[in-house]
Amino acid sequence: MIEFEQIFYAKSIAIVGASNKPSKAAHQIINTMLKGGYQGTIYPIHPREKDVLGLKCYQSISEIEESLDLLVIGVPAKEVYKIFLEASTRGDIKGAVILSAGFSETGDPELIELEDKIVNIAKKAGIRIFGPNCIGIINSDIKLSTSFAPVSKVANGNLAFITQSGSFGGSLLMLAEESPKPLGFNKWAHVGNMSDVTNIEILEYFGTDPKITSIGMYLEGLAHGNELLKIAKNITQKKPIFLLKVGRTELGSRATLSHTGIIAGSDKIYDGALKQSGIIRVDNMEELIDSLKASSTLPKPKGNKVCVLTEAGGPGIITIDEITKDNFLQLAPITDHTINQLKKVLYPMATICKPNGYIDMTAAALEKEHADSLRLVLEDPHVDSVILISLPPTFLPALNVAKSIAEVINKYNKPVAVCFMKGVKMLESRKFLEKNNIPTFDNPRRAARALINLTKASSYLKTE
Amino acid sequence: MIEFEQIFYAKSIAIVGASNKPSKAAHQIINTMLKGGYQGTIYPIHPREKDVLGLKCYQSISEIEESLDLLVIGVPAKEVYKIFLEASTRGDIKGAVILSAGFSETGDPELIELEDKIVNIAKKAGIRIFGPNCIGIINSDIKLSTSFAPVSKVANGNLAFITQSGSFGGSLLMLAEESPKPLGFNKWAHVGNMSDVTNIEILEYFGTDPKITSIGMYLEGLAHGNELLKIAKNITQKKPIFLLKVGRTELGSRATLSHTGIIAGSDKIYDGALKQSGIIRVDNMEELIDSLKASSTLPKPKGNKVCVLTEAGGPGIITIDEITKDNFLQLAPITDHTINQLKKVLYPMATICKPNGYIDMTAAALEKEHADSLRLVLEDPHVDSVILISLPPTFLPALNVAKSIAEVINKYNKPVAVCFMKGVKMLESRKFLEKNNIPTFDNPRRAARALINLTKASSYLKTE
Repeated sequence: MIEFEQIFYAKSIAIVGASNKPSKAAHQIINTMLKGGYQGTIYPIHPREKDVLGLKCYQSISEIEESLDLLVIGVPAKEVYKIFLEASTRGDIKGAVILSAGFSETGDPELIELEDKIVNIAKKAGIRIFGPNCIGIINSDIKLSTSFAPVSKVANGNLAFITQSGSFGGSLLMLAEESPKPLGFNKWAHVGNMSDVTNIEILEYFGTDPKITSIGMYLEGLAHGNELLKIAKNITQKKPIFLLKVGRTELGSRATLSHTGIIAGSDKIYDGALKQSGIIRVDNMEELIDSLKASSTLPKPKGNKVCVLTEAGGPGIITIDEITKDNFLQLAPITDHTINQLKKVLYPMATICKPNGYIDMTAAALEKEHADSLRLVLEDPHVDSVILISLPPTFLPALNVAKSIAEVINKYNKPVAVCFMKGVKMLESRKFLEKNNIPTFDNPRRAARALINLTKASSYLKTE
Repeated sequence: MIEFEQIFYAKSIAIVGASNKPSKAAHQIINTMLKGGYQGTIYPIHPREKDVLGLKCYQSISEIEESLDLLVIGVPAKEVYKIFLEASTRGDIKGAVILSAGFSETGDPELIELEDKIVNIAKKAGIRIFGPNCIGIINSDIKLSTSFAPVSKVANGNLAFITQSGSFGGSLLMLAEESPKPLGFNKWAHVGNMSDVTNIEILEYFGTDPKITSIGMYLEGLAHGNELLKIAKNITQKKPIFLLKVGRTELGSRATLSHTGIIAGSDKIYDGALKQSGIIRVDNMEELIDSLKASSTLPKPKGNKVCVLTEAGGPGIITIDEITKDNFLQLAPITDHTINQLKKVLYPMATICKPNGYIDMTAAALEKEHADSLRLVLEDPHVDSVILISLPPTFLPALNVAKSIAEVINKYNKPVAVCFMKGVKMLESRKFLEKNNIPTFDNPRRAARALINLTKASSYLKTE
């Protein structure tokens, strides 16, 4: 683990191939790190440039007299070998991110051999390789980012992400940034071709990192599946792992082979094995980010009994469909006492516990009805968690609803997933809620999936 | 149909229960119509107010001397009956939207009877009722909207929507409004309890309306299913119908009973029957809006052979997974000639037709590679449609990519679904594409679902 600690906390980085052309990845990575405020030293490397983006440029790695922790390499594949020959003579470099593509993923025997040769030199020199075909790592603690995804600034927080696709991992960060309150990632890693560093090693490292309390993963194929499951089983007793595994179909699996040179394998076998390891498998990027969001801020539910409290019938039914189809959460058996109290605070046309655990306050519900109903169900001992759905109409200021429910939610140690529909009109209210550590979702299905996954993950956690 | 034409094109509307309190639905409906620019006359009705939002207020319907086409009623349930008694004496009113809830949907025998009594009076007077428990209708042609969903302005266009849930229908409009180019709805209807006007009648009306070229529907339950299927079968030969049917699970179905008093029925039976009628069933709100978007602007595909052209491996694999799982679209058998041409325009690390029909240009692809590859696959006679995915990184200006591909797309009469990832950073480019009638999607799964549904719907269309 200490080697990864040294790489993720690199005090100095050489960026090889950093010209002054904005159309070059290496140029943009320097730009991103300067904007982000990387706390270490950046050394641009280019045979002809004198300076890049205001930084002194070096002709080669050997020219750098100071200590060097990390290399980022953005030159054509055929030039990478000689860079490693040079790098291997220094003795101080701990890691290298190879951005360049055109190695083993092509299936070309010559390029596979080239990749092997590079890995061999690196191994002897003690340099761990991320990639090739890789955008590398992010560590928000020191504002280190070797990514060329257009993400202005990764917020720091208690999450981590491991990805086998740079574009997927980058998109996830863009989505995280646009949450009403941006999701915070402490660390993030793209493993590319995994010629050396594997996603399993990173998972193990993130598993031990006390700053990280939940881990997201995107996988295409799975080399050394048993090892991953063993390590995951240990981690999921302490922190949730949410996984999106693609290449589910045979054709999709054939495409993964061209992407990172790894066969995806049979999907159904994974399904069962992942379950045993406590990994929560999700279906898509939105579900992945929503599960991370819920896990990042909500208290862990004590059980699987959920109350669906809605101001709108249609979205309420969609929520019940989702919960029932999944079959892990169950509608809470709300007590008669609570039902009688609910009848007192709601209008006569409200649907109270038909079926039990489901309450439709109807569009007549104003701030008070939202807050009173929510308080009553959170008080009920049979309720472990709540999905609250509201679509404040023109006659009900959404922010008032947000304020009234936040006050209630913060008095109880039970998870509440809030869905305010729909879109930018609800952003102010959702920002208010998320600033108060109440995660919000754009539609009821997403709120339901997030709470389902959080509850499943919580069932694997062992309290110490 | 003429009765619906008179209601949707109402020249005058009385809004009963319109006080000056902004917390009242009837007040907000007047506000919405004034802001929207309703082209007819609005008569606020309230026993005590002198004017509402600058409009002269009437104490009762009888006081209005001019001709009256439509009533919107926003008073408590128990007061609705006497309004109909009064309205029935006029003889000019064609329709009424009853906003008020608390009728048959409660299951209370007295309230069911009250609803029946109201319907009987209305029938005798020739007044068609939307609702109760209903937000009614929208007609963008004359800026008529009885909705209290917080939608500033519904763009006009060639789409229509029928909904059994006001909140769902309202949310859909909010989502439509936030598309890079807002989706245009010519007409929209919420049927509430369907005490009189049914979703089937509205469907038939929208089916005959030449301004409407695609119809979206949200259903919870299905009274008179056979009639709906018969009418739909006729319509789907001329224009697509995309349906979201909820209450899929038994619990969800029980909740629909409380919502609109209709049992949802067995989901599997629906599935088969809907297919026979040519209705395209979708899974969620996003898929519904995406299918409508694709259908609204794209040329109809001639067949089911799709090319997946991607700049990023992960999202490409997700797309293939979605297509394969659904099993209607097939990857296009691209010709050797095209493959050889693609090899010339792309970088060596690109994945060309492994599997066939799938091309990963890799992150090295700039504007030219996007445009050249797209041109080649659109030229290929075996390609009926294209899903183009791009995640322009920091070194590639997204708008340049958008411009270069728009120029190509507009030269061919084949549908291209474009996915630019991710979020607001891609908004400028997506706006550019959508202004050029090229629909864009936020993630590859959504692009795939939209194209799948468009292709399925197109297979039912009969050319004249």
